[in-house]
Amino acid sequence: MPLARITVPTALSDTKISELADAVHAGLVETCQVPLADRFQLIFTLNSKHMHIDPNFPDVNRTSEASIVEILFLEGRTVQQKAALFEHIAADAMKAGFAGDDIFIALTENATTDWSLGHGRCFGQDHSP
Amino acid sequence: MPLARITVPTALSDTKISELADAVHAGLVETCQVPLADRFQLIFTLNSKHMHIDPNFPDVNRTSEASIVEILFLEGRTVQQKAALFEHIAADAMKAGFAGDDIFIALTENATTDWSLGHGRCFGQDHSP
Amino acid sequence: MPLARITVPTALSDTKISELADAVHAGLVETCQVPLADRFQLIFTLNSKHMHIDPNFPDVNRTSEASIVEILFLEGRTVQQKAALFEHIAADAMKAGFAGDDIFIALTENATTDWSLGHGRCFGQDHSP
Repeated sequence: MPLARITVPTALSDTKISELADAVHAGLVETCQVPLADRFQLIFTLNSKHMHIDPNFPDVNRTSEASIVEILFLEGRTVQQKAALFEHIAADAMKAGFAGDDIFIALTENATTDWSLGHGRCFGQDHSP
Repeated sequence: MPLARITVPTALSDTKISELADAVHAGLVETCQVPLADRFQLIFTLNSKHMHIDPNFPDVNRTSEASIVEILFLEGRTVQQKAALFEHIAADAMKAGFAGDDIFIALTENATTDWSLGHGRCFGQDHSP
Repeated sequence: MPLARITVPTALSDTKISELADAVHAGLVETCQVPLADRFQLIFTLNSKHMHIDPNFPDVNRTSEASIVEILFLEGRTVQQKAALFEHIAADAMKAGFAGDDIFIALTENATTDWSLGHGRCFGQDHSP
């Protein structure tokens, strides 16, 4: 019910793509109380000419493997949770061989009533406490 | 002026893709007062290895045709309208042969001044009451 | 740190795609105080059958080159800045040969703590004043 959109260079290996996707989900599970089964990710591959990614802004060093992670999730996570999420994703990606600066993450938020996970039901109506 | 991003498996037939897109727009028109002509939809096709979609979370049964519908639209719709939107889209998709649980929908909102529909004009400035 | 997603028809020439991307970034730099180096853009190309774009809503004339620009950036820009941004992007795109009505723009906003630009650090924590 978070929805992650992960955009990577076409040159990236299947293994690395898959490990990055795993890193994103593990971060959500470990730091933001997302259930393990609650995994929804879309992976887009782009030629380098279709990814304009500054190599150094604001104070980092990106390589040709730089990837963009967009996560849409429920409002209400604290700054501490978001900071922990970023750290967790980057740490796992580094274990998978990514440069730490190659993981760019942007979050957007919405409400429980903004999701339908199936059968046309409104999540925030069907599943609120 | 809603903008819909619809991501479907490459295996889905053109007919079904097109019927899903129609279902999304009909839902907006029928439940959210979107004008019929106000149709802006982008359709992305992904290999199954690039769509990580849990088959059962939270309590549903998704097939290999599971598709993700993201809609960006104006803030202000009520929970009742959103619930009706979800129901309408899923019902139309089911008429087109989709399993009801294969339609995953996420909404995000913005303001009238966040749109330019052409010629560099700000919609909320040009078209406010 | 704005993140732009630009979706164009596959038929568009590389030159025009690139000039549109330049126009989007120049607009952000000139009207919204975005640093020149702060450029992050993803470009998606779609077949015409995967872009449903009404040719005339609400009062414009779009051609087969109509393109969709989505920008995610920090909350806080004024309506005046947004209007200036739209105008700047469209003006530059027109200089590059686009019809003014072919540039459709949608903005969404988030907070400084919703970004990690590298190494798992939270931008709003590391770079706040």
